[in-house]
Amino acid sequence: MSDHLSAQPDTLLPLETALERLLAWAVSSPIRECETLSLADADGRVLAEPLIAELDLPPWANSAMDGYALCQAEVRGEPLRVSQRIFAGQAPGPLQPGSCARIFTGAPLPAGADSVEMQENVELLADGRVRFSQPIRLGQHVRAQGQETRRGETVLLAGTRLGPVELGLAASLGVAQLSVIRRPRVAVLSTGDELIEPGLPLGPGQIYNSNRRLLCSWLQRLGCAVLDAGILPDDLALTRAKLGELSEVDLILSTGGVSVGEADFLGQALREEGQLELWKLAIKPGKPLTCGQFRGVPVIGLPGNPASTLVTFALLARPYLLKRLGVSELTPLHFPVPAGFAWSKPGKRREYLRARLEQGRAVLYSNQSSAVLRSAAWAQGLVEVREGTTLAEGDLVNFISLSELLG
Amino acid sequence: MSDHLSAQPDTLLPLETALERLLAWAVSSPIRECETLSLADADGRVLAEPLIAELDLPPWANSAMDGYALCQAEVRGEPLRVSQRIFAGQAPGPLQPGSCARIFTGAPLPAGADSVEMQENVELLADGRVRFSQPIRLGQHVRAQGQETRRGETVLLAGTRLGPVELGLAASLGVAQLSVIRRPRVAVLSTGDELIEPGLPLGPGQIYNSNRRLLCSWLQRLGCAVLDAGILPDDLALTRAKLGELSEVDLILSTGGVSVGEADFLGQALREEGQLELWKLAIKPGKPLTCGQFRGVPVIGLPGNPASTLVTFALLARPYLLKRLGVSELTPLHFPVPAGFAWSKPGKRREYLRARLEQGRAVLYSNQSSAVLRSAAWAQGLVEVREGTTLAEGDLVNFISLSELLG
Repeated sequence: MSDHLSAQPDTLLPLETALERLLAWAVSSPIRECETLSLADADGRVLAEPLIAELDLPPWANSAMDGYALCQAEVRGEPLRVSQRIFAGQAPGPLQPGSCARIFTGAPLPAGADSVEMQENVELLADGRVRFSQPIRLGQHVRAQGQETRRGETVLLAGTRLGPVELGLAASLGVAQLSVIRRPRVAVLSTGDELIEPGLPLGPGQIYNSNRRLLCSWLQRLGCAVLDAGILPDDLALTRAKLGELSEVDLILSTGGVSVGEADFLGQALREEGQLELWKLAIKPGKPLTCGQFRGVPVIGLPGNPASTLVTFALLARPYLLKRLGVSELTPLHFPVPAGFAWSKPGKRREYLRARLEQGRAVLYSNQSSAVLRSAAWAQGLVEVREGTTLAEGDLVNFISLSELLG
Repeated sequence: MSDHLSAQPDTLLPLETALERLLAWAVSSPIRECETLSLADADGRVLAEPLIAELDLPPWANSAMDGYALCQAEVRGEPLRVSQRIFAGQAPGPLQPGSCARIFTGAPLPAGADSVEMQENVELLADGRVRFSQPIRLGQHVRAQGQETRRGETVLLAGTRLGPVELGLAASLGVAQLSVIRRPRVAVLSTGDELIEPGLPLGPGQIYNSNRRLLCSWLQRLGCAVLDAGILPDDLALTRAKLGELSEVDLILSTGGVSVGEADFLGQALREEGQLELWKLAIKPGKPLTCGQFRGVPVIGLPGNPASTLVTFALLARPYLLKRLGVSELTPLHFPVPAGFAWSKPGKRREYLRARLEQGRAVLYSNQSSAVLRSAAWAQGLVEVREGTTLAEGDLVNFISLSELLG
């Protein structure tokens, strides 16, 4: 009988509620320590302070075209002589009155010039003068100083995740180093006596541990310092000791061990020396989720089936971690696409199906079992089928690209 | 006059044609050398050989539920005694005839059992026997051996880019190391006398080099070994010498220096000791593109305006590089979304506009100048407006998420 008692009441927690709670929890334990890194080392990190422009961009008015710089008011049908040639990188003297300057893309406009005519529209005379036959609009083909960015403007907010574009933008402002949040330290633990590491021979009843590799690589992409903490021992004292060793990390992430059949030493340790909540999520795959802390260290326990691990990490643990770093953009882009399948049986839980786009329609991997990671390797994204709904082919479903989630 | 002569004929090359040519060029110089890496080191790399399953997944039939394993033919209304308890990780003995086995999720089915009834559907009797009152379907709640994957099946194709999911999948098959294509060596060169490195004081007429940071970080994300080759000197002999130093790389990627106004020593060096093609692409931003080789080393010259660099790298240089590694999935996912803007003037070139999704509509950054990298940092993706078309608000446009392109 005792086997059945540990089953929890069957109240399902909506994904939104679970996420709200996790984010509120994240806000209560922000990671704020910073370090200063060169741009080359800052890819994937989170900006600790806003990036404020200390110069105008462009820093001076320049030509958007290969052509001729001139003072628009001086163009009255008479050809102008060319008084100077200005290449990018040069610092030109002032424009001589009644003349124009040969100018190339990106080169600074000389003082006294206010417009550029492109070379295709002018006539070069034999005496070297230039005839402007088309009407010239004041300021045409000129990139004004500060047109992109003005000194003092906030260009990137604190909490921005830095990628090649943001780093390039910082470089364009002359910034060589950025203050970023330190890497969060995350310990990855597996539970399950049946797990064995790849490379070792498989004994009877054993399976290879795939979640550890999935999570360790994923966490590294999120900028985490990952501590591979191995397999949680099947013993309360050893579990306590193992958790105690992890007092310096920001998060303990475990997988598996939430099935009724497994002796729940992790849960017991958390109950005794911390806090434990067991949620039954209204999503599929990924029903059981553990949240809590051990001696003050946050613990998230993901379900152990690989597709469940993937979905719960993507939708819950990932935003939780990013939130602790101060990241504000947490919702992955998603797109309505026509379903290339029918869904006739409304579910109690929201389904996250592994899918690809074929001719603009979301098609499903044949085996959507939570035990099957191959579905996710085949897939380009997750298709969301909301609880209590049925779908006909062609109905719109939400598609979240895996590339949005995996970085 | 000579200034104008170097202008090229105004034939625009469609993006598809340019990409086709680049991919054909890539196929002619594949990078095939491999190295064997542990899974922990293989994230972002390209699989050199197909991954073939050397075991069934699951390796043995197991229970998908917490419940009772039994032989379906033996259930005839009479309660069954429980002859053993099987946890995940155990190797059970055969099922005694006329009995059932207590079994937990993931645990191996004992020989002689063919079905599982979940615990919620049984009645435990006072004498310890179990009554099965619901009809039992043969094989129910059993994950059959090889249900996910059969030994000998190809699980990942050569040319697959490895990420957390693929690495987890390899781990699930017991594979600890993978053969991957070696990192491509890419030299990044900038041209432009006006460029100065971030961190240094800005002199008159100078601007900070942002493309180098953009490209170096991006190339690293693509698994490249990046050689930062600095600024290309404004002198033919020095250009030759610099290019000559790069004989060991797989690709020289340069930015800038294709404007008519700049002395084109790169082009001259390529013409004399290699090959040079200058394309005018029918895209905006990103018109001018240089392709060629110097003493056999492929060279791609991207335009120097940051948004042009970004778009041409994303749409042309990125797939070219991945193709040389044997990657087959080169087309980024794209989604039709309603335009949150109108486009009244049909263009000659296809536009790639920096955009965000707001309430499901693509909205544009206010300044779409090719000189403006800030637009891309603000953006979530590129919106494609095809040449020769106009758009009303709500018309569908192609949206390519930047996360698809940047990894």
